[in-house]
Amino acid sequence: LILIGERINGMYKDIGRALREKDPAPVQEWARIQVERGADYLDANVGSSVDDQVESMKWLVGTIREVTDCPLSLDSPKAEVIRAGLEAAGAGSIINSCKAQRSTIEVLFPLAVEHGARVIGLTMNETGIPRDADARTELAMELVAAADEFQLPMENLLVDPLILPVNVAQEHIAEALKTISAVKMLSNPAPLTIVGLSNISHKAKDRSLINRTFLVMAMAVGLDAAIVDVCDDLLIDGVATARVLLNQEIYADSYVKLFRSRKAR
Amino acid sequence: LILIGERINGMYKDIGRALREKDPAPVQEWARIQVERGADYLDANVGSSVDDQVESMKWLVGTIREVTDCPLSLDSPKAEVIRAGLEAAGAGSIINSCKAQRSTIEVLFPLAVEHGARVIGLTMNETGIPRDADARTELAMELVAAADEFQLPMENLLVDPLILPVNVAQEHIAEALKTISAVKMLSNPAPLTIVGLSNISHKAKDRSLINRTFLVMAMAVGLDAAIVDVCDDLLIDGVATARVLLNQEIYADSYVKLFRSRKAR
Repeated sequence: LILIGERINGMYKDIGRALREKDPAPVQEWARIQVERGADYLDANVGSSVDDQVESMKWLVGTIREVTDCPLSLDSPKAEVIRAGLEAAGAGSIINSCKAQRSTIEVLFPLAVEHGARVIGLTMNETGIPRDADARTELAMELVAAADEFQLPMENLLVDPLILPVNVAQEHIAEALKTISAVKMLSNPAPLTIVGLSNISHKAKDRSLINRTFLVMAMAVGLDAAIVDVCDDLLIDGVATARVLLNQEIYADSYVKLFRSRKAR
Repeated sequence: LILIGERINGMYKDIGRALREKDPAPVQEWARIQVERGADYLDANVGSSVDDQVESMKWLVGTIREVTDCPLSLDSPKAEVIRAGLEAAGAGSIINSCKAQRSTIEVLFPLAVEHGARVIGLTMNETGIPRDADARTELAMELVAAADEFQLPMENLLVDPLILPVNVAQEHIAEALKTISAVKMLSNPAPLTIVGLSNISHKAKDRSLINRTFLVMAMAVGLDAAIVDVCDDLLIDGVATARVLLNQEIYADSYVKLFRSRKAR
């Protein structure tokens, strides 16, 4: 499982303040911690409350780059903010994210190819998020066709079936699992699959229990990547165990410890 | 998920002693505890060390029946021991278990029909347990054909893909998951699927972590039943959460508490 650390996001108070005051300390601290906990990528999101999102993204990426060369997931609904992030971050980034609609694909897929970046393709379009797995899989198919068209290597397309909070859209979750499993059979090679995990337990009571249970269930049906709280020890225990059970990692009595001590770089 | 409590088994020291000394106390205590923890069935296994397994099974079932009418899973490699258990237990039992080989099927499937019992069919035969999912699924197909032939209702066939310990046969586990998912697509209606869970972590270090991670992964691919330690709270938390995420139970903030307080009867 490719782990993307979620914590550098203007939505969090400490990062929001750091962005407004141009204070590198919290950003660099979270960059260090998440890399230490095994993040393969760091998500970088300036949030919506800063004055100049393009300048903020440049500052955020530069600030992270002072302490780590861990690849970044440049997270914004705006193409110009993502572009600024890509230019500052260097090769091997992730564009987070691109809806399955022509106007967005035409901008972001060529940008990904130009920068050697991966793209998270969302199974939603102008009309919103479809309720069932079949309709989501159709949108995933459009993303796969677009990858072919724009010559984006299939392993650089990460399809996100979109996980909504269990307490408001419970019936979507089983459909998202079905979508993951269907997407892995869409093409050969298949695109990768990804979820933004924490949203599933938004305002729920035992968030870690819900997050870690869903994550290993999704791994069982073919999940390849997830944007997560890499500091949630029980979640990482679950990932390490699921990797062993799926025969992706050799069993040793100390497999959990080994997985934890694995550094991204 | 149908939960079968594993604890009344002569393999455990307290139950082994109770069987030899005809002491009802530990048996009845474990019957009560497991029903209270939500077991839908209680496994009953006299082990291999008692002198007369048929008499021991009669005593074991009668002893359980003094405290609960919870249905039983009559667990023995010997048909005559299972028959004695079925006669003492009453309708709605499970025969645990029947290999996918003609000589065994011809004895146990008619016995199941006669007693209105379910049968756990193992995906193994005279030559052992196949390594890969395709070969196991072929054996499952033989069990499904036998259910048709002997007029065993399909919901009374529980196919067990056989889980071996992760520390000795790691590569079997992913194959077992694939088998579960394939068996659910074998026929319409499909048979149920079941695993004997605890074996997966035999002699491993963090047994509960491995057990609970595998169980929810298996639920994600279609597992219907499991023989488990119903007293493992973290395992039951995982089952309750997976049921909500699979939309099999309505979400409420207190869903874990609600699931725990659910009594089998």
